[in-house]
Amino acid sequence: MAARYDFASDNTAPAAPEAMAALAAANTGFASGYGSDPVTTRAADLVRAWLDADVEVRFVASGTAANALSLAALCRPFEAVLAHRHAHVCTDETGAPGFFGHGLGLIGLPGASGRIDPAALAEALGAPDVSYRQSPAALSLTNATEYGTVYSREALAALTTAAKAGGLGVHLDGARLANAAAAGFDVKTIRDLGVDLLVIGGTKAGTPPTEAVAIFDPALARRFDARLKQAGQLPSKGRFYAAPFVGMLQDGAIVRHAAHANAMARRLAALCPFPVRHPVEANGVFAEMDDAALARLHARGWFVYRFLDGTVRFMCSWATTSDTVDELSEALKAIA
Amino acid sequence: MAARYDFASDNTAPAAPEAMAALAAANTGFASGYGSDPVTTRAADLVRAWLDADVEVRFVASGTAANALSLAALCRPFEAVLAHRHAHVCTDETGAPGFFGHGLGLIGLPGASGRIDPAALAEALGAPDVSYRQSPAALSLTNATEYGTVYSREALAALTTAAKAGGLGVHLDGARLANAAAAGFDVKTIRDLGVDLLVIGGTKAGTPPTEAVAIFDPALARRFDARLKQAGQLPSKGRFYAAPFVGMLQDGAIVRHAAHANAMARRLAALCPFPVRHPVEANGVFAEMDDAALARLHARGWFVYRFLDGTVRFMCSWATTSDTVDELSEALKAIA
Amino acid sequence: MAARYDFASDNTAPAAPEAMAALAAANTGFASGYGSDPVTTRAADLVRAWLDADVEVRFVASGTAANALSLAALCRPFEAVLAHRHAHVCTDETGAPGFFGHGLGLIGLPGASGRIDPAALAEALGAPDVSYRQSPAALSLTNATEYGTVYSREALAALTTAAKAGGLGVHLDGARLANAAAAGFDVKTIRDLGVDLLVIGGTKAGTPPTEAVAIFDPALARRFDARLKQAGQLPSKGRFYAAPFVGMLQDGAIVRHAAHANAMARRLAALCPFPVRHPVEANGVFAEMDDAALARLHARGWFVYRFLDGTVRFMCSWATTSDTVDELSEALKAIA
Amino acid sequence: MAARYDFASDNTAPAAPEAMAALAAANTGFASGYGSDPVTTRAADLVRAWLDADVEVRFVASGTAANALSLAALCRPFEAVLAHRHAHVCTDETGAPGFFGHGLGLIGLPGASGRIDPAALAEALGAPDVSYRQSPAALSLTNATEYGTVYSREALAALTTAAKAGGLGVHLDGARLANAAAAGFDVKTIRDLGVDLLVIGGTKAGTPPTEAVAIFDPALARRFDARLKQAGQLPSKGRFYAAPFVGMLQDGAIVRHAAHANAMARRLAALCPFPVRHPVEANGVFAEMDDAALARLHARGWFVYRFLDGTVRFMCSWATTSDTVDELSEALKAIA
Repeated sequence: MAARYDFASDNTAPAAPEAMAALAAANTGFASGYGSDPVTTRAADLVRAWLDADVEVRFVASGTAANALSLAALCRPFEAVLAHRHAHVCTDETGAPGFFGHGLGLIGLPGASGRIDPAALAEALGAPDVSYRQSPAALSLTNATEYGTVYSREALAALTTAAKAGGLGVHLDGARLANAAAAGFDVKTIRDLGVDLLVIGGTKAGTPPTEAVAIFDPALARRFDARLKQAGQLPSKGRFYAAPFVGMLQDGAIVRHAAHANAMARRLAALCPFPVRHPVEANGVFAEMDDAALARLHARGWFVYRFLDGTVRFMCSWATTSDTVDELSEALKAIA
Repeated sequence: MAARYDFASDNTAPAAPEAMAALAAANTGFASGYGSDPVTTRAADLVRAWLDADVEVRFVASGTAANALSLAALCRPFEAVLAHRHAHVCTDETGAPGFFGHGLGLIGLPGASGRIDPAALAEALGAPDVSYRQSPAALSLTNATEYGTVYSREALAALTTAAKAGGLGVHLDGARLANAAAAGFDVKTIRDLGVDLLVIGGTKAGTPPTEAVAIFDPALARRFDARLKQAGQLPSKGRFYAAPFVGMLQDGAIVRHAAHANAMARRLAALCPFPVRHPVEANGVFAEMDDAALARLHARGWFVYRFLDGTVRFMCSWATTSDTVDELSEALKAIA
Repeated sequence: MAARYDFASDNTAPAAPEAMAALAAANTGFASGYGSDPVTTRAADLVRAWLDADVEVRFVASGTAANALSLAALCRPFEAVLAHRHAHVCTDETGAPGFFGHGLGLIGLPGASGRIDPAALAEALGAPDVSYRQSPAALSLTNATEYGTVYSREALAALTTAAKAGGLGVHLDGARLANAAAAGFDVKTIRDLGVDLLVIGGTKAGTPPTEAVAIFDPALARRFDARLKQAGQLPSKGRFYAAPFVGMLQDGAIVRHAAHANAMARRLAALCPFPVRHPVEANGVFAEMDDAALARLHARGWFVYRFLDGTVRFMCSWATTSDTVDELSEALKAIA
Repeated sequence: MAARYDFASDNTAPAAPEAMAALAAANTGFASGYGSDPVTTRAADLVRAWLDADVEVRFVASGTAANALSLAALCRPFEAVLAHRHAHVCTDETGAPGFFGHGLGLIGLPGASGRIDPAALAEALGAPDVSYRQSPAALSLTNATEYGTVYSREALAALTTAAKAGGLGVHLDGARLANAAAAGFDVKTIRDLGVDLLVIGGTKAGTPPTEAVAIFDPALARRFDARLKQAGQLPSKGRFYAAPFVGMLQDGAIVRHAAHANAMARRLAALCPFPVRHPVEANGVFAEMDDAALARLHARGWFVYRFLDGTVRFMCSWATTSDTVDELSEALKAIA
């Protein structure tokens, strides 16, 4: 029996046909390098149109690098980033922010279901600015969150307003921005939220490895290409990072696919015989399941992870089918 | 008139059909992440077979990162890397070795046509090991070199033997290893040269962005995935980095294409009305041309760069056709 | 009324007469630089004699740097240090380990009264070594601890043995090693504990700013001067860092003064009308006191800090007199 | 025969009596830490008065760290510092700027006798700002220079004006600022030169290890203490770094001693039987001497270094006596 990785993550899926088609289409003729090609220009235009914002856009290989470089741009080594304590930058990137940011600190904040508790943010912002601790210089947010919930515009605004009032920069990790958008979060409102740097996930949305960085604060854009090049994130064949975004954005595939992923998560949640802990607003389902049950599920070939809060995480993607959801739910019922 | 980037670099070419076909073939079904998928295993096996060496293999997004991470693995911040003073790591990577290596130093060595002068290496190795300077801990070599020349096995061995005798680690930047192989350099001899880390270029050989790192020293392999992950170079969808190597290696396309590129360079050199400065052993031609001539060439739409030694560089790739070479040489004759 | 800093820290004290006399004595004639002078040799010999260990010794300006450089020597950026969660390296050094160690991680462990809980260490050592987290490469211990307790040789050995079995390096922060020694910890046993790098506090023991680093693992000593020089910790006028250690070590003043400091802490604890939370084994007293009481104490001019566990910390030093202790205890009684 | 280090460097001298007396005087009673004590306040006031400038002042342990932290404050990792190619930051600090600055680059500029050639600066400022190279963000100057020459106010202004016009920050390494002052350079003019960060050497001027950093740009002062603390340069017993400056500045000893050192250099130059290469404007003499002659000098016990330009360097200090100069010149005559 082959192991099934369908629900292990949203990055176990293949790339979506729209992304692959655009990749193939871009692969013709010679093109100038390092993002100066027409495909990159077109992709950046599509990002700007999607966000309705006059941002600088770069396409990079890795979400980890995109996040870490963004935080390094906002924060000096003797300063810290405030983030949800279970945010990807805190828990799943092998300390990349400290590596790219030369030791910058991460201060983990609590909050239910992956959303930062505003009171905890206020407390962190109110801490005395002493020389023996890394005081905050940036707030990092994630939408959709690690727990498959989605910040409303108002909830985000409350956090970013507090951060800006405290003089902090704001980074938004949009590894699953498409899922948030499909859940009703209007990406055109990011422009007014005080976000300085936004990372737009391609990979989890259904592209080959590529992520977009949208730079809202023009001052941060200065020498950003040099920043990327030094960090190994300015690809010579830039069109290969840009083309998948063309494919996903030009006709709205990015949100259409995410809406499907979200719907698959809701379907799974409805069928799941185990208690579901967090609201299912995006493409993840977090089930309460003990080790014995998880072992039985693994024995049936379904490979999934126990997550940071102790639940078992099931991620859906553009490629998840309702048949597969049903197949999994049958397995879950059998082992419950 | 559209600008022509055909000879601006070997990374202006599109990806080769073998690479793209493999990419498409790999894009089926769900796969486990971070290099644990079967495509990555297959690609690593093919690299091992090509090198005839029992190496650990990783696939990463960027040659700059692959080089810099390798140097960081060999060298502590208060130590230095010896490299040709015009090596890519010294001149074209925005200081990436210092960024990934936390300030490690680069000591540029002279040498004709991109090959390190053994006497200069000896002198550098003989310098006193004083605390106020960064003393060498690694030697970085490039084959084929930046000037389109190819080290023989013997020439490389002389350098690596000296480095090893001095206790240094050895890094080989093989961004154009395929071109060296096509020129007669036997990649199976690398195994015995004392190379600790080898970077095998995919991009310049004709793949979408991907590079392979071959780890010859098993001690260096420990936690290499964590090293990559922290640096934003452990792709979740690993098969997309591995598949192009499958396509290029499984039937020898990588060397076949490089041989074509090398042949195109020889053809261009033969037709070039300007003096050619360096031996044309790989896929580059370096012509002596004044600013006025270069401006005339640019005016005809051919975009090429003046290189570090003052010559004008013309790079050929798998996609360069003999017609294009002839077209360029006509233009060169017209402006000579 | 002038503020009184007598108990705010053990670094508010002046330097002890033995240290100052040695400094003055060393200040004659010309001397070679960077630790090659006879005073430095003499001080290193005295450290070796005190530890009864054939260690390399360096004298540096700062305990923060000494600790951080030690951790950087033991740990790569994608690895982590295990330390008590209230250890100085975790809480009071502005992220210095991450800065000197290029993003290395810190994993805080629990444990009563500043001593690491062996079970927590075992759990941390048993965590899976996954690429997306910084896995431990070093254990950092502190003796005497931040809470004025002292590890016995056996307690330390249990922790270092576990760490060594897990392949970790061991760092011992001895900012208050003198106080531990005065409390009965035999510094000659460090040699056999598996400690790789030991920092011996001068400043808190009564010297002008200077700390000693003892390198037990000879492999770590290679190019240590270059490591220090690059980090701004290889003083040209080395005798000024060494001489105070000569003064403190040549007749045992370092332990004699620490014994006095410890005795003053015991006296204070005995007189303190507030509950004392931690065992008073070294030179600190940690009292349970609410904000109103602390404010009343501040109003009387006694400047002390609320510590990480919520208690109020009173530190004694070589310069603390019994009269001052009595004066403080009168104030405490008045505000209790 | 004991080796003589009198002329090996200006940091082989002991500390001047004024500095030691102030140190002893400061060593009374308890004091608050980390630069909040009255001695530090007094020393900072004296620095401000000397410079006639409303600067923030910090006292740190090491010139290497002071320089490197200053450059890190002015320059991001993907940017570079322009400095004389023989400046201390380029040649004698083990790559500290890259370590403290996370890989920032150093671009060495030529110029006779240690002074940067304005044409070379103009050329560097005019280089295209491309992403694959570290473009300049700061200019680092040294006065007095490494070759014992002194920039006039006008010469410095020409360089800083060009740098400022190019948007660069300016760092002035004043390890021997006292010698420049004694040679006629008015330190009160620094204020108007566009210098952002000035390092004032204590050590070479005759103090125990301590250096002052004067921050002219108030924006750079934000969280500078955290910057220092993280880098191990915020001493807890701050008065020990500040007191020597009190001693040297309160009655002008710093310039008086430097004037003596300069005079000793002129005396030595006048008596030196070997050709003196650079103008003797400060406290160094650079003699042209072959290896055989240098070996004979060493054999007579005089320990001096061959410098970067191939000359042999003789440094004078506050403690150099005319008798010693005469003694050395006799030795030089004997071996000439």
